[in-house]
Amino acid sequence: MRGQVVFTRDAAGALGRMLEGTAEEEVYVLADENSRRWCVGRLGLEGVPEARRLVMAAGEGAKSLETAARVWQWLSERGARRGSVLVNGGGGGVTGLGGFAAWCFKRGVRHINVPTTLLAQVDASVGGKTGVDFNGLKNEVGTFAEPEGVVVDNGMLAMLPRREVLSGLAEMVKHALLDSGEHVEEVLAADLADVAGAGFLGLIEQSVAVKARFVRQDPKEGGWRRALNLGHTAGHAIESAALQRGEAVTHGEAVAHGLEAALWLSVRKRGFDARLYGRVREFVRRTYPRCEAAAEGDALYALMLHDKKNERAGVNFTLLRAPGEPEINCYCEREEILEALKEIG
Amino acid sequence: MRGQVVFTRDAAGALGRMLEGTAEEEVYVLADENSRRWCVGRLGLEGVPEARRLVMAAGEGAKSLETAARVWQWLSERGARRGSVLVNGGGGGVTGLGGFAAWCFKRGVRHINVPTTLLAQVDASVGGKTGVDFNGLKNEVGTFAEPEGVVVDNGMLAMLPRREVLSGLAEMVKHALLDSGEHVEEVLAADLADVAGAGFLGLIEQSVAVKARFVRQDPKEGGWRRALNLGHTAGHAIESAALQRGEAVTHGEAVAHGLEAALWLSVRKRGFDARLYGRVREFVRRTYPRCEAAAEGDALYALMLHDKKNERAGVNFTLLRAPGEPEINCYCEREEILEALKEIG
Repeated sequence: MRGQVVFTRDAAGALGRMLEGTAEEEVYVLADENSRRWCVGRLGLEGVPEARRLVMAAGEGAKSLETAARVWQWLSERGARRGSVLVNGGGGGVTGLGGFAAWCFKRGVRHINVPTTLLAQVDASVGGKTGVDFNGLKNEVGTFAEPEGVVVDNGMLAMLPRREVLSGLAEMVKHALLDSGEHVEEVLAADLADVAGAGFLGLIEQSVAVKARFVRQDPKEGGWRRALNLGHTAGHAIESAALQRGEAVTHGEAVAHGLEAALWLSVRKRGFDARLYGRVREFVRRTYPRCEAAAEGDALYALMLHDKKNERAGVNFTLLRAPGEPEINCYCEREEILEALKEIG
Repeated sequence: MRGQVVFTRDAAGALGRMLEGTAEEEVYVLADENSRRWCVGRLGLEGVPEARRLVMAAGEGAKSLETAARVWQWLSERGARRGSVLVNGGGGGVTGLGGFAAWCFKRGVRHINVPTTLLAQVDASVGGKTGVDFNGLKNEVGTFAEPEGVVVDNGMLAMLPRREVLSGLAEMVKHALLDSGEHVEEVLAADLADVAGAGFLGLIEQSVAVKARFVRQDPKEGGWRRALNLGHTAGHAIESAALQRGEAVTHGEAVAHGLEAALWLSVRKRGFDARLYGRVREFVRRTYPRCEAAAEGDALYALMLHDKKNERAGVNFTLLRAPGEPEINCYCEREEILEALKEIG
């Protein structure tokens, strides 16, 4: 990994150290409507004038090629150069789109990500995945582009809506499943009221460490990294279906239900512990809204066939033999996938 | 360098070997209106159906984000996946745009470049620069992305208009200047009537070898590779000025005049041999159209200030102390640049 990831309770201090030696007039800030408040105060960027701040709309709809073009236009008109630094402060939409924009502007300007949602902190903070939605498909256009640095400060989560906290939590459950049974129990028992507290930062760091381990072994997702795709084969399809129908489903809600499907298949095809499957399933049903899309199995299956991680014809899942023992590229029959989708709560 | 560059008189054979093991239905072909004829016959791609061939317009105007979006739309609708291969057959516009599109589609599909102009063969075949024009600026949006392979077959140049041959020749002069005095004399004396002949292939290979040497030492243009920018500081400005006014100036014409300016500054500031400067200047005046833009020194200077290779305020040239002895990041005063532009033929 190229980037330096700092876990801190003092985002401004950490960002300041990363920007040492950079002329103030070379700093550009991208935020969204939700995160804009922090980009001035909490990050200590009061000195950055309006002309070098850009606010994009929040939400998946803004993660488009048109928004990327707007960022390029802004950087181009303001005279940004390769030595300039784009600070992307926001959720995964901002860090993913901003990372893509930075990577492609003049063939690459520096960028630093400051994730401001739990989901972005545990998932988008490492791995270098950037991109925009295109042709109705998530991240259809993008690159692998590690930022120069990442600042993770969970104090920023104090005002995060509960639904957004739960969205990040689903990725933490996934990381825990890829790690160990104890880690799973720890995440399922986490006190969400304390998400912005000092104690929770350790849980976030632990979650990121699991992801970083897989990314390090396979930065460009040629193979092993696909373990991180656990829950995402069905999850992405659920999310794409919602995107196409204009419904509001968070990434984590889709992943939580995707985990249900993946664990059901894991029990059936790889001997995963049925009791632990039951624990996770019960947790998902208790914690997340019902999955409306699960009823439309055929449409979801068609979307899975389109997934960018499919190398061969057919749909391949990441399954688990046990916590911490993933198996990638597990081919699953259409019929068993439709059955798994029926089991989703 | 990641990619394999093959110099050959049998493009179809070389491409066939690169595509060994790739299912026929995973091959996509991007060409432009000029190169489309070869993409079927000369490359042995008769088996690729119309649905997996896309023809973009020729010329700089087509090297846009809109065209890249058209390529993404086409790949997305046809179900291209990461294991698919995009064959970019055409001039630098096709290989640069196609490389960018491939690199960013689903965060990267395989691609092979088959440059079909002399300029693309000597310049775009190595170095991994991809991109599109944006906001009136050349390659304002793009990435560094080495293709999996490059096939250079100068038999394809048989029908290339003389003006396009001369465009490539300017880059060959530049490469020779970065190599040795003998190499310069060899290129200035080259028989352009034989550009598609077996003898010329060696000259092309020699030219690419010079470029590859600099790229290898500095893939992302952090420093030393900027030696290849010789002639391009003024050259890009001349080209951008023409682009903005809708005038037809080839890249090589702009570079040829840019070399005049760079060598004039080299004589004056770095003691470059005035006799060799005179030889190159005489060659450029004899061979290339007059440079209309040279009269507008102020406008060109403003464009140079915008160049993506500028790290600091001010304009920096690559200059030569002697053939093969470049010096990068040479700061030049506005006044001496305006004088150099006045000397352009």
